[in-house]
Amino acid sequence: MNTRERVRMLVDAPAFQRVIIAVILVNAFTLGCETSATLMAGYGWLLHAIDRIALAVFTIEIAARLYAHGWRFFRDPWNCFDAVIVGVSLLPTTGTFGVLRALRVLRVLRLISAVPNMRRVVGALLTAVPGMASIAALLVLILYVGSVIATKLFSEVAPEYFGDLGDSLFTLFQVMTGEAWSEVARSVMEAEPLAWIFFIGYIAVTTFTVLNLFIAVAVSAMESQVSKEREDRHDSATTVQDLLGEVRGLRAELRELRAEAGSAPTARS
Amino acid sequence: MNTRERVRMLVDAPAFQRVIIAVILVNAFTLGCETSATLMAGYGWLLHAIDRIALAVFTIEIAARLYAHGWRFFRDPWNCFDAVIVGVSLLPTTGTFGVLRALRVLRVLRLISAVPNMRRVVGALLTAVPGMASIAALLVLILYVGSVIATKLFSEVAPEYFGDLGDSLFTLFQVMTGEAWSEVARSVMEAEPLAWIFFIGYIAVTTFTVLNLFIAVAVSAMESQVSKEREDRHDSATTVQDLLGEVRGLRAELRELRAEAGSAPTARS
Amino acid sequence: MNTRERVRMLVDAPAFQRVIIAVILVNAFTLGCETSATLMAGYGWLLHAIDRIALAVFTIEIAARLYAHGWRFFRDPWNCFDAVIVGVSLLPTTGTFGVLRALRVLRVLRLISAVPNMRRVVGALLTAVPGMASIAALLVLILYVGSVIATKLFSEVAPEYFGDLGDSLFTLFQVMTGEAWSEVARSVMEAEPLAWIFFIGYIAVTTFTVLNLFIAVAVSAMESQVSKEREDRHDSATTVQDLLGEVRGLRAELRELRAEAGSAPTARS
Amino acid sequence: MNTRERVRMLVDAPAFQRVIIAVILVNAFTLGCETSATLMAGYGWLLHAIDRIALAVFTIEIAARLYAHGWRFFRDPWNCFDAVIVGVSLLPTTGTFGVLRALRVLRVLRLISAVPNMRRVVGALLTAVPGMASIAALLVLILYVGSVIATKLFSEVAPEYFGDLGDSLFTLFQVMTGEAWSEVARSVMEAEPLAWIFFIGYIAVTTFTVLNLFIAVAVSAMESQVSKEREDRHDSATTVQDLLGEVRGLRAELRELRAEAGSAPTARS
Repeated sequence: MNTRERVRMLVDAPAFQRVIIAVILVNAFTLGCETSATLMAGYGWLLHAIDRIALAVFTIEIAARLYAHGWRFFRDPWNCFDAVIVGVSLLPTTGTFGVLRALRVLRVLRLISAVPNMRRVVGALLTAVPGMASIAALLVLILYVGSVIATKLFSEVAPEYFGDLGDSLFTLFQVMTGEAWSEVARSVMEAEPLAWIFFIGYIAVTTFTVLNLFIAVAVSAMESQVSKEREDRHDSATTVQDLLGEVRGLRAELRELRAEAGSAPTARS
Repeated sequence: MNTRERVRMLVDAPAFQRVIIAVILVNAFTLGCETSATLMAGYGWLLHAIDRIALAVFTIEIAARLYAHGWRFFRDPWNCFDAVIVGVSLLPTTGTFGVLRALRVLRVLRLISAVPNMRRVVGALLTAVPGMASIAALLVLILYVGSVIATKLFSEVAPEYFGDLGDSLFTLFQVMTGEAWSEVARSVMEAEPLAWIFFIGYIAVTTFTVLNLFIAVAVSAMESQVSKEREDRHDSATTVQDLLGEVRGLRAELRELRAEAGSAPTARS
Repeated sequence: MNTRERVRMLVDAPAFQRVIIAVILVNAFTLGCETSATLMAGYGWLLHAIDRIALAVFTIEIAARLYAHGWRFFRDPWNCFDAVIVGVSLLPTTGTFGVLRALRVLRVLRLISAVPNMRRVVGALLTAVPGMASIAALLVLILYVGSVIATKLFSEVAPEYFGDLGDSLFTLFQVMTGEAWSEVARSVMEAEPLAWIFFIGYIAVTTFTVLNLFIAVAVSAMESQVSKEREDRHDSATTVQDLLGEVRGLRAELRELRAEAGSAPTARS
Repeated sequence: MNTRERVRMLVDAPAFQRVIIAVILVNAFTLGCETSATLMAGYGWLLHAIDRIALAVFTIEIAARLYAHGWRFFRDPWNCFDAVIVGVSLLPTTGTFGVLRALRVLRVLRLISAVPNMRRVVGALLTAVPGMASIAALLVLILYVGSVIATKLFSEVAPEYFGDLGDSLFTLFQVMTGEAWSEVARSVMEAEPLAWIFFIGYIAVTTFTVLNLFIAVAVSAMESQVSKEREDRHDSATTVQDLLGEVRGLRAELRELRAEAGSAPTARS
C-alpha cells in the first residue's frame, strides 16, 4: 500500500469527515464573533488565530484529497466547490479589502458539501433549475422590456424609481416581488394618472409568469415520485405481458393436444 | 423552383432565423442604451441608425415571409404577433409621441417568437389561461362590488384611497395583492372603527379566490402529465382485456376438447 | 296547463334568464355610476329610476319563481341566496342609512347565481371549505392566544398596535398576512429587545399553518381527479379479478378432464 | 374494581372530556377579558377567581389522569404537552412577572389536545416537519452566512439594519419574508450602489429555497394519498402475480396431461 492509497484511506474515513465538519462549525462561530466590535477588542487575536488554523486545516485537507484522488478530484462538482471556496480565502485581502474579507465567510457553506444530507438537499434543489431556465429567461426579458418602457415614460416624473435603466430594473424587480409596489405606482400616478395601466399589466403578467415558474419547480419536484410510480406500473404491465405470453402458449399447447387427441383415435381405428 | 419557393426556403432556413435573433438582441441592447442621456449625447446618431436598420430588417423579413407563405402566414398566431409588433414600430410617432416611442421596445418581445424554446414556454403558459377565465371573472366581480361598497362607505373618510370608483378599484386591487393593506385599513379605521369587518372579509374572500386561481393553473399544468399516465393505464387495461379474451377462448376450446374426449370413447364402444 | 305551470315554463326559459342577466349588468353599471358625484348631479334621477326598475324586476322574478316552484324553491341554496340579496335591498334605508345602502350593491353578486358557469366555479370553491375548517379553527386559536399574550406584554410599549385585545387581534392578523410586520416588530423591539422571539415564533407557526391550509385546499381540489383515476383502476382491478375467476374455472375443468381421461382408459381395459 | 380503575373510567369518559373543554373555553374567555383595563377594574376579582378555579380543575384533572394511567401517562406526547402547560401556570409569577403571566394564556392551547379533531390536524401538521428539517437547516445556514457578510459590509452604512450580527439576522429574516426589503436595500444602496447584487442574490436564493421548503411540505401532505394508491396498485399487482402462478400451474398440468395422453395410446398399442 503506497502513500497515495494511505492518504486516500485517511481522507475518505468518516472520522476525518467529522473532524472537518467540527472545524467548519468552530470557524463559523468565530467568523460570527468577528462581527462584534466588543469581542474583537478583547479576543481578536484568538479569533484570528482560530481562523488561520481553520484555513490551514482546509488547505491541507483539499491538498490531501487532491493528492489522493488525482485529477478525478475535479470530476465531483462538490470538490470544485470546496476548492474554489478555500481558494478565495487564500487570496490576499489588501486591495478591495472589504468584499473579499466578507466572502471568506462563504467558507461556512462548506458545511453543505461536508454533510451528506445537505449535499443531497442542495442536489435536489439544483435538479429543479434546468426546468426553470426557460421561464426565468422569459421573466428577465419581460423585466428588461418593462424597464426600458418605464424609463422612457417615467424617468422624469419619478427619477428616484425610474431615473435610468438600472434604477428601473431594480424598481421593477421590486414590483415583481410585490414589495411596496403601490408606493411606486402612486408616486408615478400623481403625474401620470394612466400609469396604472402599466403597473397592473406588469403585475398581472409577472405574477402569472412567476406562478408558472413556481409550478414548474413543484412539478419537477413531484416528477421523481411520478416516475417511480410509472416504473411500478411498467413492472405490472410487464407481468401482464408475461401472462399473455403464458396464456397464448397454453392455448397453442391445447390446440396441439386436440390435434393429437383427434388424430390418435383415427390412427387406431 | 419559382421565386416564391426560393424565398420560402431562405425564410425558413435556420441560418436566417439566427440572423434575425442576432438583430433582435442587438436592437434590444441599443434600445436599452437609448434610455441613457449620456450615451444618447455621444452616440445618439449611431443608436438611431442601428435602430432604423433593425426596423428595416424586420420589415423586410415580415414582408418576405408574407410573400413566401401567402395568406397562410396569418394562420400562425405568432406570425400575427410579429406583424403587429413590427407594424406598431412603423407608425409615425409625432402626436402622442412618448407612449408610441416607448412601445417600440415591445419589438424585443419578438425574441419570444424567434426562439422555439421561448415559443413553447409561452404557449404552455397560455394554455393555462382558459382554465383561469371563470375564476378571474369572479375576482373582477368581487373587486367591482367591493369597490362600489368601499366608495360609498369610505369616500369621505379616506379620499386618497377611496375618492372615486377608479381610486377604489386601484386600492382594492392593491389590498388584493396584500400590499400595504394595513396602511389603508388603519387610515380608514381611524374614522370608521368597524371598517375592519370590510377589510378582513375582503382579504379572506379574495385570498381564497386567488389561491384557487393559482391552484387552477397548477392543476391545468399537471393535467398533461396525468393524461399521459391515463393513456399508459389505458394500454395496460387493453392488454388485460386481450388476456381475458384469450383465456375465454382457451376455456371454450377446452370445453370442446372435453366434449370430443367424452364422445370419442362412446363412439368406440 | 294551469297558471303555475305556465309561470314555471316562463321562469325556467333560457331567454328569461338572459333578460335577468342583462338587468343585473345594467344595474351593476348604474350602481357604479351612482358613486360619482358628477354623474349623480346630472343624471341622478335616471340612475335612481333604473335602480328602482331593476329592483322591481328582481322582486317580481323571485316572486314568480317562488310561486312556480312552491316551497321547493328554498331547497336550492342559490335561490335562498337570491331571495336574501333581493330582500336586503327591499329593507328601508332610513336608520343606519349608509351601510344598508352600500349593501344594495351586493345585488350585483346575483350574477354568480344567474350565470351557470359562475355558479359552478363558486360551488367548486365552496367544496374546499369543509376541508379547511379544522385548520382555520386552529389558526383562529393561535391568533387569539397570540393576541392575549401580545396585549399583556406589549400594550404599554406599543399601544397603537397592541392597545387592547381588538387592536392585537387586528395587528396579529396583519402580521399573519406578512404585511408590514417588520414595522410592528421594530417599534415593539425598541422598548422590548427580546420581542423578536415572539414575532419570529408567531410568524413561523402561522406561516406554516397557513401553508398547510393552502395545501389542504389544493389537495381537495386535486381529489376529484384522483378519485376519477381510482375508479379507472378499480375497473382494471375488476377485470383482473374476473380473469382470475376464469383461469381458476379453466384449471378446474382441466382437472376434471384429466380425471376423465385417466379413468376412461382404465374402464376400457 | 379498585380506585385506580374507577378513576380511569371517570377520566376517560366522554362527559368528563366535554367538561374539561367547557372549562378551557370559559378560561380562554376570562383570560381575554383580563386584558381589558375596564373589565379588570369592575370584575377583576371574578376573573381571577374563575382563573384560579380553572387552574385547580386542570391540576386535579392532570393529577387524576396521572394516577389512573401511571407512568404510561407520559408515553402519549399530548399528555406531556398538557402537563407542561399546566405546570407552567403553577409556577410562581413574582420574579420575571410579565412573561410568565402572559404564558399562562398558553393554557388555551389545551383545546388542541382536548378536541380529537384538533389533535389530528396538529398531528398531521407535525408529520410534515421532519421532511422540512434539511431544507430548514439549509435556510438557517444561508441566513447565518448572509448575516455575517451583511454585517461586515453594511454595518457602518446602515447601522439600524445591520449594526451587529443580531440586527443582521433579524433584517435578513425580514428580507426573506419579502417584507419591506426594498426599504432596507434602498437605504443601503445610497452609500453602497453595488449592494443590489447582495440583495437580489440573497432574495433569489432564499425565495427558491423557501419555495422548495413549501413544496416539500406539499409533497409530504400528498404522500399519504399516493401511498394509499400504491397499496391499491400493490393489491392489483399481487392479483396479477397470483394469476401468473395459476396460469403456470395450468400449463404444467396440461403438459402432464399431454404426456399421459401421449403415453396412454402407446401403452395400449
